[in-house]
Amino acid sequence: METLAYLDPRSGRTWPLDVPRWCGDAPGGEHLPLLLTDLPGIAPGDIDRGERSLWRYRAALPPLKGSPISMGEGCTPLVPRSFGGATALLKCEWFMPTGSFKDRGASVMLSLLRAQGIDAVLEDSSGNGGAAIAAYAAAGGIRAKIMVPASTSPAKTVQSRASGAEIELVPGTRQDCADAALREAANIFYASHNWHPFFLEGTKTLAYELWEDLSFRAPDNVIVPCGAGSNVLGCGIGFAELLRAGQIDRLPRIFAAQPAHCAPIAREFLGLDPAEPQPTIAEGTAIARPIRMRECLGVLQQSQGGAVMLSEAEIGRACLDLARTGIYVEPTCAQAAAAFAKLLQAGTINAAETTVVVLTGSGLKATPRIAELLGLTL
Amino acid sequence: METLAYLDPRSGRTWPLDVPRWCGDAPGGEHLPLLLTDLPGIAPGDIDRGERSLWRYRAALPPLKGSPISMGEGCTPLVPRSFGGATALLKCEWFMPTGSFKDRGASVMLSLLRAQGIDAVLEDSSGNGGAAIAAYAAAGGIRAKIMVPASTSPAKTVQSRASGAEIELVPGTRQDCADAALREAANIFYASHNWHPFFLEGTKTLAYELWEDLSFRAPDNVIVPCGAGSNVLGCGIGFAELLRAGQIDRLPRIFAAQPAHCAPIAREFLGLDPAEPQPTIAEGTAIARPIRMRECLGVLQQSQGGAVMLSEAEIGRACLDLARTGIYVEPTCAQAAAAFAKLLQAGTINAAETTVVVLTGSGLKATPRIAELLGLTL
Repeated sequence: METLAYLDPRSGRTWPLDVPRWCGDAPGGEHLPLLLTDLPGIAPGDIDRGERSLWRYRAALPPLKGSPISMGEGCTPLVPRSFGGATALLKCEWFMPTGSFKDRGASVMLSLLRAQGIDAVLEDSSGNGGAAIAAYAAAGGIRAKIMVPASTSPAKTVQSRASGAEIELVPGTRQDCADAALREAANIFYASHNWHPFFLEGTKTLAYELWEDLSFRAPDNVIVPCGAGSNVLGCGIGFAELLRAGQIDRLPRIFAAQPAHCAPIAREFLGLDPAEPQPTIAEGTAIARPIRMRECLGVLQQSQGGAVMLSEAEIGRACLDLARTGIYVEPTCAQAAAAFAKLLQAGTINAAETTVVVLTGSGLKATPRIAELLGLTL
Repeated sequence: METLAYLDPRSGRTWPLDVPRWCGDAPGGEHLPLLLTDLPGIAPGDIDRGERSLWRYRAALPPLKGSPISMGEGCTPLVPRSFGGATALLKCEWFMPTGSFKDRGASVMLSLLRAQGIDAVLEDSSGNGGAAIAAYAAAGGIRAKIMVPASTSPAKTVQSRASGAEIELVPGTRQDCADAALREAANIFYASHNWHPFFLEGTKTLAYELWEDLSFRAPDNVIVPCGAGSNVLGCGIGFAELLRAGQIDRLPRIFAAQPAHCAPIAREFLGLDPAEPQPTIAEGTAIARPIRMRECLGVLQQSQGGAVMLSEAEIGRACLDLARTGIYVEPTCAQAAAAFAKLLQAGTINAAETTVVVLTGSGLKATPRIAELLGLTL
């Protein structure tokens, strides 16, 4: 294969992989979101079957010298559940060290960054991304600073603080916080779960795992909750590698589920005018300006998948409906189950197909939200 | 093998397995805690390797007609961590549907009870046990009623309520709540995680899983947090089966970690006088009168293991120390890690041995407690 490099997918420009960077530099000084040049994918025989973590797919990842930072992330179960007369396979991504799928990205990104000599990282997230980066930095002996909006409820940062991460409260909106992080990136390496292409190398292991779960076939459809799109892109990258490697015949259709209150990717895909974002119960997907919008749309189009917008009522109902079957997840990811029901009803997905619904985070992360849905006062 | 039956281990009396019961009846009307008569254990070839849940060890369980109630419980990772110059293998039991090891017991118990025709169950627990029973009852189409002390913080029951369980608040102490449940057991089948022997059939799968994790050998030592003792007994039953089946040469030493503030089993094992229980941060192990005390002591003795009492400070420190390595767990189970350090220091365990530290519950279940340890005000 050609030498692996950072890639600006819009210009085709590359940067050498061995020099740490989190973005491409444009002539005008703007930050360009990067991917990596193509990796060749792997065959079943390349899986390290003795390894109970996503590192069983290490051969599919950028080369890593030394040990990864791993806490048993990945190898999550697929649990069947019926909705509206059809069965979906729920990929239970909260069976993870910090309780969300973000551990896939954090494990791979921080392992690769540590091997590049990075010993301190910056992140901005008060949610699952921040918790995952903080925990894996702690596990890897890396110093972490997490910037969060000052309005963040203290309970939300307990997990990151316990890891020993420095938490900086930034006055203003979530966007103000992201802007402050970009400025701070001059001082500490910006290991942003939204920006760094190594993070997507972690989320792509979901595709490899589904392929192995299904006896080395791709499902027909994969429905993921979508904010910045790290699971859309991860599935896009991973399944494209498997296709290039001749391991699957075609891409699964990838569907992005977004809250109607904040659905920039879905609106663009569906040909709707942009709309002002509104608050949503699906907090984890409330990303007004996803930096890889174009690449996300590319995955939905190339896979012949689609996008679904969910009302607040639909998201809340799906969350409680799942809980009534024992599946206790964040409202954010329950929308993937709500999208399954809508796609079935529309005839876009049919009951005979193999459809995976990706459930990304534990309900234990959303106690106040779920209490609200139940009409409880805490 | 002889016909499987419920067994009163103290009198040797048995009851037929096909008649649902949660306790033995003594002439004086008292409730006797039951086990099952011996099962023969299994060999590696009996494992259903295509099954990613504890049901891969189905051949080791009481016979079940039909499908189990399963949500991918079990198959948790073993993550190495160093403490005081030695490495322990952390068994990460919070990678589970409801976030704790109790899912093992709930899955097996409710699957077997449903097959016996039970369609409504009673439980008393405001903690991990209640959440697990509520979720698996929901998954299995079983009605659940959970009795909790009226003083329970509302946030603690959100998870059980979301499953659709009926939550009954009982005025008074935890003991008053248990007493009320015993009375209510006349009306609904009492599927108590502390009482029912089928629950231990679920927790015993931990032993089978460790055996498989370690390439079909037993570890030298297993350290478990201990309240009512379901992991002590589960390991005792499971490893004894493997020993009888000739799959292992000897039992691993089983060590029970208890908070010094409430350590009835450890005190008895260590020959100390009973003491009045005091509140402890290790809430999940604050069981003042464990109903199978004698059987727990038997496991510790027969395995040549032991018991360790931890101060509140030791438990809190262990919890934060683990978090500083990325391992975010409840203080309740952090005491198993604290016990490892003490056993090493005492020379009871040596660094060359294979020691498993069982971490039973997610830190996400203990946000207020961990915030306190960090000195944060929520």
